[in-house]
Amino acid sequence: MKLGMHFHSVINILGLLLMFLAVSMLAPLPFSYYYASGDHSALLYSALITFLAGLTAWYFTEFNEDLRPKEGFAIVTFSWVGLSLFGSLPFLLSGAIPSFTDAFFETISGFSTTGATILSDIDGLPRGILFWRSLTHWIGGMGIIVLSLAILPFLGVGGMQLFKAEVPGPTADKLAPKVADTAKMLWGVYVILTGAQTVLLMFGGMDLYESLCHAFGTMATGGYSTRNTSVAAYSSAYIDWIIILFMIIAGSNFSLHYRMMRGNFKAYFQNVEFKFYLGIIALATVIILTDTFDMDGAGVEKSIRDTLFQVVAIITTTGFATADYENWSFGSQAILFFLMFTGACAGSTSGGIKLVRIYLLIKFVLSEIVRLIHPHAVVPVRIGKTVVNRDVMQNIIGYFILFIIIYSIGVLIMTATGMDIESSFGAVAATLGNVGPGLGSVGPTDNYAHLSIFGKWFLSFLMLIGRLEVFTVIILFSPSFWQK
Amino acid sequence: MKLGMHFHSVINILGLLLMFLAVSMLAPLPFSYYYASGDHSALLYSALITFLAGLTAWYFTEFNEDLRPKEGFAIVTFSWVGLSLFGSLPFLLSGAIPSFTDAFFETISGFSTTGATILSDIDGLPRGILFWRSLTHWIGGMGIIVLSLAILPFLGVGGMQLFKAEVPGPTADKLAPKVADTAKMLWGVYVILTGAQTVLLMFGGMDLYESLCHAFGTMATGGYSTRNTSVAAYSSAYIDWIIILFMIIAGSNFSLHYRMMRGNFKAYFQNVEFKFYLGIIALATVIILTDTFDMDGAGVEKSIRDTLFQVVAIITTTGFATADYENWSFGSQAILFFLMFTGACAGSTSGGIKLVRIYLLIKFVLSEIVRLIHPHAVVPVRIGKTVVNRDVMQNIIGYFILFIIIYSIGVLIMTATGMDIESSFGAVAATLGNVGPGLGSVGPTDNYAHLSIFGKWFLSFLMLIGRLEVFTVIILFSPSFWQK
Repeated sequence: MKLGMHFHSVINILGLLLMFLAVSMLAPLPFSYYYASGDHSALLYSALITFLAGLTAWYFTEFNEDLRPKEGFAIVTFSWVGLSLFGSLPFLLSGAIPSFTDAFFETISGFSTTGATILSDIDGLPRGILFWRSLTHWIGGMGIIVLSLAILPFLGVGGMQLFKAEVPGPTADKLAPKVADTAKMLWGVYVILTGAQTVLLMFGGMDLYESLCHAFGTMATGGYSTRNTSVAAYSSAYIDWIIILFMIIAGSNFSLHYRMMRGNFKAYFQNVEFKFYLGIIALATVIILTDTFDMDGAGVEKSIRDTLFQVVAIITTTGFATADYENWSFGSQAILFFLMFTGACAGSTSGGIKLVRIYLLIKFVLSEIVRLIHPHAVVPVRIGKTVVNRDVMQNIIGYFILFIIIYSIGVLIMTATGMDIESSFGAVAATLGNVGPGLGSVGPTDNYAHLSIFGKWFLSFLMLIGRLEVFTVIILFSPSFWQK
Repeated sequence: MKLGMHFHSVINILGLLLMFLAVSMLAPLPFSYYYASGDHSALLYSALITFLAGLTAWYFTEFNEDLRPKEGFAIVTFSWVGLSLFGSLPFLLSGAIPSFTDAFFETISGFSTTGATILSDIDGLPRGILFWRSLTHWIGGMGIIVLSLAILPFLGVGGMQLFKAEVPGPTADKLAPKVADTAKMLWGVYVILTGAQTVLLMFGGMDLYESLCHAFGTMATGGYSTRNTSVAAYSSAYIDWIIILFMIIAGSNFSLHYRMMRGNFKAYFQNVEFKFYLGIIALATVIILTDTFDMDGAGVEKSIRDTLFQVVAIITTTGFATADYENWSFGSQAILFFLMFTGACAGSTSGGIKLVRIYLLIKFVLSEIVRLIHPHAVVPVRIGKTVVNRDVMQNIIGYFILFIIIYSIGVLIMTATGMDIESSFGAVAATLGNVGPGLGSVGPTDNYAHLSIFGKWFLSFLMLIGRLEVFTVIILFSPSFWQK
């Protein structure tokens, strides 16, 4: 090859993933038949096409064991794009979403666990297709956990090296060196938690179908619901609280859950980021409550629940809704807007910048202040008792600056398509941060259907960039990436 | 003293500055008498009070030659606050601005060269007071040039060390070591340019009074006009072009002008930041012209002039207006919004982050991308051919992160006072960036009069923070600053 890239390996892995995707397209079939929703043939054809494409890609290429970081970046980015292309087949073939642009937007919004939708009538969709829609979240979430805890730490993206030793291996208290081993452990945790939430939601009166779909949306911090009015449709305090709890869980570092399941409950409260996370949720909720408390005579429990639900839904970048926060005060909306940027914990399925980075950036600024007062002092940045390596800090800073640059360019481009300023600020934050609902014309009671075709593709691109920790995608646009 | 601070020195210098301020309060008197505007006694009393206060402060304190960075920070911050307190006296004593909050806001907006006003009827103000209002800009601008090119480089704030060797001394091509020498050279340049603009404006038909006031507003990149409708009131292509030219000059590094006056014309085009500055102005103007071109049948020259005027007025953070950009497309408004953040060149009187920092932050991100592809490569950040010291880069990054944090907190606080989201985004950008007019309810045809008292004090604080390169003020809130 002329380019400095082993494309064979990239396509080989993409082929494997497409075959896996094809199999997962069969998962909605039982519901399709049970509800006789008439979408089984669309699902079967989609699975067949995807499987054949995957088989072809896999069969005619060879996997070179000697992967370099370059191939790593290419595999991750092309996989998310490839899965979104083929994942949109069920929407297209069933006629549920006739436009290719819309179908791709909906699918990448699913796989990137964003939850931004172009659908205005969700209740009217065939049941099999709706299940597939929620499943794209769950599959995307599986990808993200492995990406953030097993792949990116070795690629050195955005300071994720911090988590190189986070996931203990099955035998010793050391990192399992193989991605596959780490992936299996984390997926075990992910499956158990999803199962637990499904069962708990069924206790609340949801049927198996809706419980599974909402558990997928929660654990992936995606936010696709099966109802037009999202979680508000159930008007159930029990369901709200269960979803709040599992959103908080899904927004935590999965290596903590893994340790908890191995008996180390203390891991949570030894983790600086986790404490910071709970602290911010509590603080934001209390401040917003000064505005929403007993709004419309809702009562104490309902006020706290609705407020906490929305704070958690936004900070974890899930985007479920039980209340229309656009009716809240400007101050409350601004808090939610900034939580779209912070996101929750690294190593979770949430999007955004991630709290550990925010925490370290603040510590960095504080160390700079001390350096100004004492110019000759050496002031390392610490997290807990650990000194953060200077290279890791540089990576985190690079990530933050690039995030801000892309956010700014994103707003400029969306306003250039004619979108108003507030909606553009919201739409770019909600897609780059993988939140889903934004502000203004893309608020929690609106959707993305009215955007221009260009706008939809551009926001799809932002979802991809945000989901893959920015650098993973942007690096592919660097000329030196393609040189030998 | 118990605190680790030589307050004597701080108060001593403040006293000197107040005496200088008192003398400058006499400058509007000739116009007050000439126009018989009836505000001479207010000016005289203000000068007297300020002089006595300054004399007292100076007489009863001693200046300790052995200044440390700590005292440097305190002197700078307390000077700007002290000057703004006493500088508001003419407004209060003349009754032109009866409220202390409003008078302080107007004065710190002047000294910080912001140009945000609480006045709705500027034409109706007495002529002496109006002259004083413009003069606060000019005095603030003098302060800023010395601060950014002679003081901050030695305090190590925000990477201003980059300019340690920028201003050549009078004898050799080396930095004049004394702040006073550097100050004198730069002020010479400042006075010459202000004089030149005044004369050129008079050729355009403005009288001496208005020419001086507008030259003050331009050279300080402040933006106070003597007319309700700002520069638009003159409807003169010549005046518009002169002001465009001098805004561009005022937004450039003054050490370049100094070199030019010593015969080195090439200095401009050897300067990376200056080229970047002209490039961004050209790019923004061309993009916005696709929207504003021949708007309302205005014709080619007028379209280009109005668009260029507004781009330059915003990027240099002057804030003069010849057109209401809130009637322009959302995309054009978003471009202007982001230019409020970039500001123009370091070492100029403009506010904002400054282009050299933006340039270096982009280079830093690019170097991070190369580091991801070649993990063992050493990739220094360069400006032109010069490698930027790692400590300087850290300072610049710290400045940027702190700027973003303060901006975010600023928006949260302004929305909490009940201001809508778009206006809050605009008001905080326009004050922290020392621009003046913002978006929404504080747009170019509006003013800040309708804000709450708290809102006015808070925005005054943001003007101060933005003007003094953020760290200079924030450092005073650090406990370790006050320890021995």
